[in-house]
Amino acid sequence: MFSLMTKLFPICRSITGNGNRETLKIIQEIIPINIFEVESGTQVFDWTVPNEWNIKDAYVMNSKKEKIIDFKKNNLHILNYSIPVNLTCNLEELKKHLYTLPNYPNFIPYLTSYYKNNWGFCISYNNYLKLKDDTYHVVIDSELKHGSLTYGELIIKGQTEQEILFSTYICHPSMCNDCLSGIVVNTYLAKYILSLNNKYTYRFVFVPETIGSIVYLHKNLDIMKKNIIGGYTITCCGDNGDFTYMKTRLENQLTDRVTLHVLNNSNIKFKIRDFMMAGSDERQYNYPNIDLNIGSLMRTKYQEFPEYHTSGDNLNFNSEKNLQETYDMYIKCINIFEHNDKYMVNTTCEPHLSKYGLHSDIGGNKIFNDSSLILQFLYYCDGRDLLSIAEKIKIHIWNLYELSSTLLEKNIIKKI
Amino acid sequence: MFSLMTKLFPICRSITGNGNRETLKIIQEIIPINIFEVESGTQVFDWTVPNEWNIKDAYVMNSKKEKIIDFKKNNLHILNYSIPVNLTCNLEELKKHLYTLPNYPNFIPYLTSYYKNNWGFCISYNNYLKLKDDTYHVVIDSELKHGSLTYGELIIKGQTEQEILFSTYICHPSMCNDCLSGIVVNTYLAKYILSLNNKYTYRFVFVPETIGSIVYLHKNLDIMKKNIIGGYTITCCGDNGDFTYMKTRLENQLTDRVTLHVLNNSNIKFKIRDFMMAGSDERQYNYPNIDLNIGSLMRTKYQEFPEYHTSGDNLNFNSEKNLQETYDMYIKCINIFEHNDKYMVNTTCEPHLSKYGLHSDIGGNKIFNDSSLILQFLYYCDGRDLLSIAEKIKIHIWNLYELSSTLLEKNIIKKI
Amino acid sequence: MFSLMTKLFPICRSITGNGNRETLKIIQEIIPINIFEVESGTQVFDWTVPNEWNIKDAYVMNSKKEKIIDFKKNNLHILNYSIPVNLTCNLEELKKHLYTLPNYPNFIPYLTSYYKNNWGFCISYNNYLKLKDDTYHVVIDSELKHGSLTYGELIIKGQTEQEILFSTYICHPSMCNDCLSGIVVNTYLAKYILSLNNKYTYRFVFVPETIGSIVYLHKNLDIMKKNIIGGYTITCCGDNGDFTYMKTRLENQLTDRVTLHVLNNSNIKFKIRDFMMAGSDERQYNYPNIDLNIGSLMRTKYQEFPEYHTSGDNLNFNSEKNLQETYDMYIKCINIFEHNDKYMVNTTCEPHLSKYGLHSDIGGNKIFNDSSLILQFLYYCDGRDLLSIAEKIKIHIWNLYELSSTLLEKNIIKKI
Repeated sequence: MFSLMTKLFPICRSITGNGNRETLKIIQEIIPINIFEVESGTQVFDWTVPNEWNIKDAYVMNSKKEKIIDFKKNNLHILNYSIPVNLTCNLEELKKHLYTLPNYPNFIPYLTSYYKNNWGFCISYNNYLKLKDDTYHVVIDSELKHGSLTYGELIIKGQTEQEILFSTYICHPSMCNDCLSGIVVNTYLAKYILSLNNKYTYRFVFVPETIGSIVYLHKNLDIMKKNIIGGYTITCCGDNGDFTYMKTRLENQLTDRVTLHVLNNSNIKFKIRDFMMAGSDERQYNYPNIDLNIGSLMRTKYQEFPEYHTSGDNLNFNSEKNLQETYDMYIKCINIFEHNDKYMVNTTCEPHLSKYGLHSDIGGNKIFNDSSLILQFLYYCDGRDLLSIAEKIKIHIWNLYELSSTLLEKNIIKKI
Repeated sequence: MFSLMTKLFPICRSITGNGNRETLKIIQEIIPINIFEVESGTQVFDWTVPNEWNIKDAYVMNSKKEKIIDFKKNNLHILNYSIPVNLTCNLEELKKHLYTLPNYPNFIPYLTSYYKNNWGFCISYNNYLKLKDDTYHVVIDSELKHGSLTYGELIIKGQTEQEILFSTYICHPSMCNDCLSGIVVNTYLAKYILSLNNKYTYRFVFVPETIGSIVYLHKNLDIMKKNIIGGYTITCCGDNGDFTYMKTRLENQLTDRVTLHVLNNSNIKFKIRDFMMAGSDERQYNYPNIDLNIGSLMRTKYQEFPEYHTSGDNLNFNSEKNLQETYDMYIKCINIFEHNDKYMVNTTCEPHLSKYGLHSDIGGNKIFNDSSLILQFLYYCDGRDLLSIAEKIKIHIWNLYELSSTLLEKNIIKKI
Repeated sequence: MFSLMTKLFPICRSITGNGNRETLKIIQEIIPINIFEVESGTQVFDWTVPNEWNIKDAYVMNSKKEKIIDFKKNNLHILNYSIPVNLTCNLEELKKHLYTLPNYPNFIPYLTSYYKNNWGFCISYNNYLKLKDDTYHVVIDSELKHGSLTYGELIIKGQTEQEILFSTYICHPSMCNDCLSGIVVNTYLAKYILSLNNKYTYRFVFVPETIGSIVYLHKNLDIMKKNIIGGYTITCCGDNGDFTYMKTRLENQLTDRVTLHVLNNSNIKFKIRDFMMAGSDERQYNYPNIDLNIGSLMRTKYQEFPEYHTSGDNLNFNSEKNLQETYDMYIKCINIFEHNDKYMVNTTCEPHLSKYGLHSDIGGNKIFNDSSLILQFLYYCDGRDLLSIAEKIKIHIWNLYELSSTLLEKNIIKKI
């Protein structure tokens, strides 16, 4: 995953443009996503797909012909969606278009102006302080014109039409935790599902944030509302902070129960965030009346680490080990979704376990016998799901996968 | 309010009689209440309206012709509803009709005998101890005969027929916190509503306690059960103790939620009392099957201050400042009732806030942006009421009044 | 109760056999139970009634003709349900059929082999260590053949068909807390009910554990599901440990509420056990879809005391005092069941209590008056049961028995 991240890192992405197409094509080398284009000007609910933005170069050059700000060194230097510019100005005029972070003086901020024509450069506050009175040549070789918005989708059919959604965003330029970590984990989770004889259908989505998920919902809302039983927006998977779970809007939904079971049974510290702190595409997926009950399992949540939306969120801030740990957590969640059937006992009174070879032949032994877990499990096979039984008898659900399967084979319980 | 209290203080009130009429006429100088009379003997549910009681004078005179107990000095001296008496007796016989409070030796107790013919005098225990063997002349110049019970009512129509009830009792003689403080706050709350373009209809009631609210419910039960959504019995508003909220019988009703939101967001200490400690007209308004969901916001609750039902509950025990604070709290509650609409989002997915001038043009800034409150508010516009949203996003509801109104104007949300 | 226990102690019981018949006949001397026989081979749900087992003698004799293990000294020495044996063997071969408890070296374990043909002896680990190489003569004079399973039942009709179940098991040989204590308490509770003008019908059951309750449910399931509102399996009533309550499977059922009210209002320490720790016939009575909502009030729970299923669970381990305390607790529970009616107020607004002689004639006294309990009680007569009212007003329910009866007589409340 880290090598995919490294490959994607230099590309300048935005909510539209060739950077996104290039990103999706690299993903396509790993999983067979379909790539879609939606034309500028398309009405999607309360929004309009904007013109497409592409950029070749951008710099500010001083009178000595030194590029003192250079897009080619770091694509965060450009205010994302800046219109084309070619002009000369003094320091005072230049400063009206410069953005910095005085509280994080080494970081270049990441800023955008998608819906208002504007131009600007982002630089570290330390470099800002070094700027001198001079005549500056400002060049932004960008293009903002009718085109399309690009997104990717992979639907992996399962035994049922019921779906689990995994969505990530592809619109950030060179930042790792907040964008690329989601892309790489989402990609490799899809690859895992492709290797599975999966019960549920899985919908993997790669969209520009906000406008992209709105475009996507606009096209697929009916089928998604009909079929989706839960899922995740994937982001911030690669830093080394504690895990953080962002709950669904309605809370205590299946996604919440699954994820909290994994976290509670993993012997690690973790944080929980209420949906009102949502900031990514879960905002659209969980908007009132949509309510696909989408959570998000992250390491440190966006907005909560100093490197967030800065040049500090680079390849040094993420690692293969952290990505792998997050991936593993998602695999555990997927396995719970896949196994979380509802069971009902199939005998009146307890079954005669020794008939089935499930009980020791010598009865009465003082030590709690080896059939006690079977019985405890059976006591709660009253129609509730496996997760509820696990929570009730205070056991990791993965310890019930084989047991439930054995009892099902022997006809002691039935699925409902 | 304190000057109205001072004017009402000397009047000898009871559950019937001219003192009540005089009290209601003074209130009528401030707000246009209607005054009703209900004839003695009228059956009201399990009760009968008693004969009307009036009193001109009452005293106990010793052999030196000194009035050692004198109704004209303090109307608490008379056992309320005492029958007429004119007799001579010795100390031993007199004592059978004297009531004191040994635990509060300076206070004259307040006692009544509404439903059994009796006579008596209440005096401080210190004065009781000074009584000597003598021949005493006892005079009670009272009248107990067929007449009527008197109450006042003011209904202020609103935009809807749904009503909020404010009820207070007018039956206590010269006591301030337990009676007059409720009368004056109720009067001035009505005056406030008269100045308002109120959404709800407000029903202000001034009745003798218990029998009066039963008379009132007997006459108005159907309309009240149909229209009332909550309200308060007003009493004990003028002492300087912490606030106390007496919950409705059913608890967690609208009145409880409104009042506790005010208290919890006021940065003050306060007490909560369960309905089983009820002692005023909320007993009738909340009786099983009536359940108008009436609470009571007081300072120190009746029965919980030493001056309760004694001559200690006088003008020194209350103040304009305390009355004003309690009035202000009720105004906050009224404002919540008036604003507590239910909202539903009006777009599929988030609205494009920058279209409406509700979002900064530069996106992506690290600091949580100024639209975050708008979005948090929208996330919970799913049909719940404003109070629920405020509780969910942990904000004072009054910070949502303008926001909800703006979003409504822009058609981003709708009332349901 | 302890003398009944003493009488029953020597008998060798099992899940079938003459020991059980003898036990039931002794119970019949105290209460008029009916005794039923169910033939070997009868199918009962997932189970089959086994052959009947009887035993006359069993011993292991060494070459000096000394009986080194002797069933007649302690009937726990025999692996319960051992088949007939008459053979000679060396120590090594003998040891394959010996069972001990190395962790409790003085105790003879209690073990069974109901559903697999086998034979064996149980001895203390200390005696096991003393065994020497020798030629042993092993005799088990038992019989395992077609016969029947025996159980007892006493149904005491009440004013309604609704039933309360009291069930205990009769299948253990000489053990007191785990078996006999349940038999004797169950017997004397039945005797108590026989002296009562009981509202509910009581079903007292004496069955061999597991197979017996399954047999019993197989025969009576429809009527039991229709009529039973709660009840108990009775066991472990005689040791001097703290009380333990094992909850019903569904929790917060009537039986749970009744028993926890008694425990919470008894000023004693007690433990609560979740149903997943169930080990006796409550497993069948509460199995999913059966759910008769049966709890169990014990002293120390089976499996939680070292003497459990050993020779240590003898007459010294139980006492009349302990049995009596447990009996008293059950009596309190029964009384709650009997009194736990649902009430509704019968007046609109409060009743005029002084009309009924239920209120002091002098009103207004500062001290909370003697009618306050009446009013608090009435406030919650809204259809909920007496237990809920007691919990709400934080009073022992037994303090409401007379009050509710008085208010009912005076027509102030009605039963619903």
